[in-house]
Amino acid sequence: MSKKLNIGLFGFGVVGQGLYDIIKTKDLNIEIVKIAIKNPEKERSLPKELFTTDRNEILNNPEINTVVELINDTEAAFEIVSRALSTGKNVVSASKKMIATYLEELIELQHKYGTSLLYEGAVCGSIPIIRNLEEYYDNELLHSISGIFNGSSNYILSKGYLENLDYDSALKQAQDLGFAETDPTMDVGGYDAKFKLIIAAAHAYGVVIDPNEVLNIGIQNLSPHDLQYAREKKLKIKLVPVAKELDDRHVTLFVLPKFVNETEFLYNVEYEYNGVTVQAAFADQQFFFGKGAGGHPTGSAVLSDIAALRYDYQYEYKKAKGANNLQFTNNVEVNIYLRYDDEALVEALEFEHIQERFYSGSYKFVIGKINLQKLIDNQQSIADSKAFVAFADQLTGVSLAAAKHEAATV
Amino acid sequence: MSKKLNIGLFGFGVVGQGLYDIIKTKDLNIEIVKIAIKNPEKERSLPKELFTTDRNEILNNPEINTVVELINDTEAAFEIVSRALSTGKNVVSASKKMIATYLEELIELQHKYGTSLLYEGAVCGSIPIIRNLEEYYDNELLHSISGIFNGSSNYILSKGYLENLDYDSALKQAQDLGFAETDPTMDVGGYDAKFKLIIAAAHAYGVVIDPNEVLNIGIQNLSPHDLQYAREKKLKIKLVPVAKELDDRHVTLFVLPKFVNETEFLYNVEYEYNGVTVQAAFADQQFFFGKGAGGHPTGSAVLSDIAALRYDYQYEYKKAKGANNLQFTNNVEVNIYLRYDDEALVEALEFEHIQERFYSGSYKFVIGKINLQKLIDNQQSIADSKAFVAFADQLTGVSLAAAKHEAATV
Repeated sequence: MSKKLNIGLFGFGVVGQGLYDIIKTKDLNIEIVKIAIKNPEKERSLPKELFTTDRNEILNNPEINTVVELINDTEAAFEIVSRALSTGKNVVSASKKMIATYLEELIELQHKYGTSLLYEGAVCGSIPIIRNLEEYYDNELLHSISGIFNGSSNYILSKGYLENLDYDSALKQAQDLGFAETDPTMDVGGYDAKFKLIIAAAHAYGVVIDPNEVLNIGIQNLSPHDLQYAREKKLKIKLVPVAKELDDRHVTLFVLPKFVNETEFLYNVEYEYNGVTVQAAFADQQFFFGKGAGGHPTGSAVLSDIAALRYDYQYEYKKAKGANNLQFTNNVEVNIYLRYDDEALVEALEFEHIQERFYSGSYKFVIGKINLQKLIDNQQSIADSKAFVAFADQLTGVSLAAAKHEAATV
Repeated sequence: MSKKLNIGLFGFGVVGQGLYDIIKTKDLNIEIVKIAIKNPEKERSLPKELFTTDRNEILNNPEINTVVELINDTEAAFEIVSRALSTGKNVVSASKKMIATYLEELIELQHKYGTSLLYEGAVCGSIPIIRNLEEYYDNELLHSISGIFNGSSNYILSKGYLENLDYDSALKQAQDLGFAETDPTMDVGGYDAKFKLIIAAAHAYGVVIDPNEVLNIGIQNLSPHDLQYAREKKLKIKLVPVAKELDDRHVTLFVLPKFVNETEFLYNVEYEYNGVTVQAAFADQQFFFGKGAGGHPTGSAVLSDIAALRYDYQYEYKKAKGANNLQFTNNVEVNIYLRYDDEALVEALEFEHIQERFYSGSYKFVIGKINLQKLIDNQQSIADSKAFVAFADQLTGVSLAAAKHEAATV
């Protein structure tokens, strides 16, 4: 029934080692034949002959029927994965940036060569969100998907909010614990969350979207003023990616810090944990929670993909084949909180409606409704002027269904 | 790729109608050919010729390749499902009592006749817990599964705690909303939750357990004193089924009211919503949340099973085939809160350790550690004396892994 998998593993970092730890505790008819690494000098916990620095030792080895790709280099990862897929090897990958960037090509390669690429480990670590979108919600109309998709930025926010730890020390801790990407802006800038959102949206809505078209504003400019404001309102600030169906024809995606209240499940998602909220037409609100980072949680997601390959499991991207194809748009109104110094920025954003405005010597903010496109147009000046932008609407959880109707000007 | 399903539907209550609503909004190559009902007099929303009162019109119809069983009568349901499975028809069922009671026979029938029985809709409505246990955690060592599995008892608890609504009115509302079983003791007595727990345990631990061996104490005896006590401690009382691995050889199952604190996800699971907490060795703590009752949420779970049958999906009960078979035991120590009148009951329970004891004219309670078997032995006298028992340990969530080690006297 299940076939033996001979695995060629690329990368032996936190996740690769986590995966190895898990596999060796089980009897799964799975063997790791070779491990390709960059640095041969580094001390390894396993026998030297298991390692190689030559990718061809794996890609050209006919014995190896499965490639597990867990490296950091996006371009190299894509070359490895596409070569494997086009030479009859199934692939499990956890490279979210690579998958989000080359998703269209990767889907084509799978169809062309009849091979399978699985990537549960790339999205929200241990949470089986892709599998559920693909298998369980395949016939469900989804109003929205949102959540906390990046463990290390959430870890930093929790350390700051719960333990008053400063940004840099918190980031250092996250890196030491192996949660953080090599380039921290990937995490705190919302890029990592965006890549995961784009991958999830492909399975939820059948849309394949260029990451460059999707807004991501991170938590780098978060100030004590913003935290103080959140505390006074009994709210927390989380970094929340949102994919939302606006009507039968349009879907929008963005990543923004968000004020969440204590009735939202995301409120209690702290440190490296992730949470995914799915709002479905018939199943109604659903929430998935689990560890979003770390070797073992991500390793267990990678292993569940490997195990599925023993039965030649493939994603079908059913919704992409569906009749009612949705279009991506940034032309949507969002309620934001903007903490700023320079009045010119407020002008440039052209608020369509201002709800609240506060001014004191050291602290100025405005809360109001603007068009998402304006945020994109002014992204650079927001970053430069150290302004902080947060999603100020109850756009997650149960209120999503309602929000759907007021999604304006599309 | 996917085959056409001609469905014979048994039962057209809340879930049956919900299912019909969902199917008609989609183009799934699924047709409901016949609907078997008990009462031909009742007004139906669909053309009369679609209905029959003769089950054989479905079971003997070779055109029908799929049976969807959504009736209330356990014995009739088992007869229908076993006849369908043994005559080459795949089956989707939401009858938790029937499945939990006849699980062993149902597994044998599937193996013997190569047919498939799916029952996601039987456990926690819209939450895809069975599919995830079967597919995603199939190689994971699970420390425990617990949660809120019964929507109508949780609805009653929420109405009482949040709105001070009395028990009977809350129950009436739950019934009017279609959450409640015909026999309310199924819900409030913890039977419904127990059946779901037993089904989940079969997929999580590979154990098939006789429902009569598993303790279920419900919320019928909950008093204002108990609610008041919970409020003072900033706790809520929920009805929580627990399946817990004690060591490499033993697993225990029970259903008890439980004090939960605000850091637990179950704390925010209110009304008809359900929540499932899974503690896994590598994936670590995971939580699933969704609507546990109602026609559309359960209907969407039933539909996802039907859709899976288009690809001849079957449960493999992988863990049952696994080497390390676990044994079920009730010989385990639990910390309980007991509110009582009759001192004799406290004597009979033979507390191994008493931690806290309170006495006033109208309100007496004791908190301490006892053997689960003692609760089973004295279940009748607990019910008769209107005593209230609640699980008084942080046995869910992250503390489970720790609790595992102190699971005593096994």
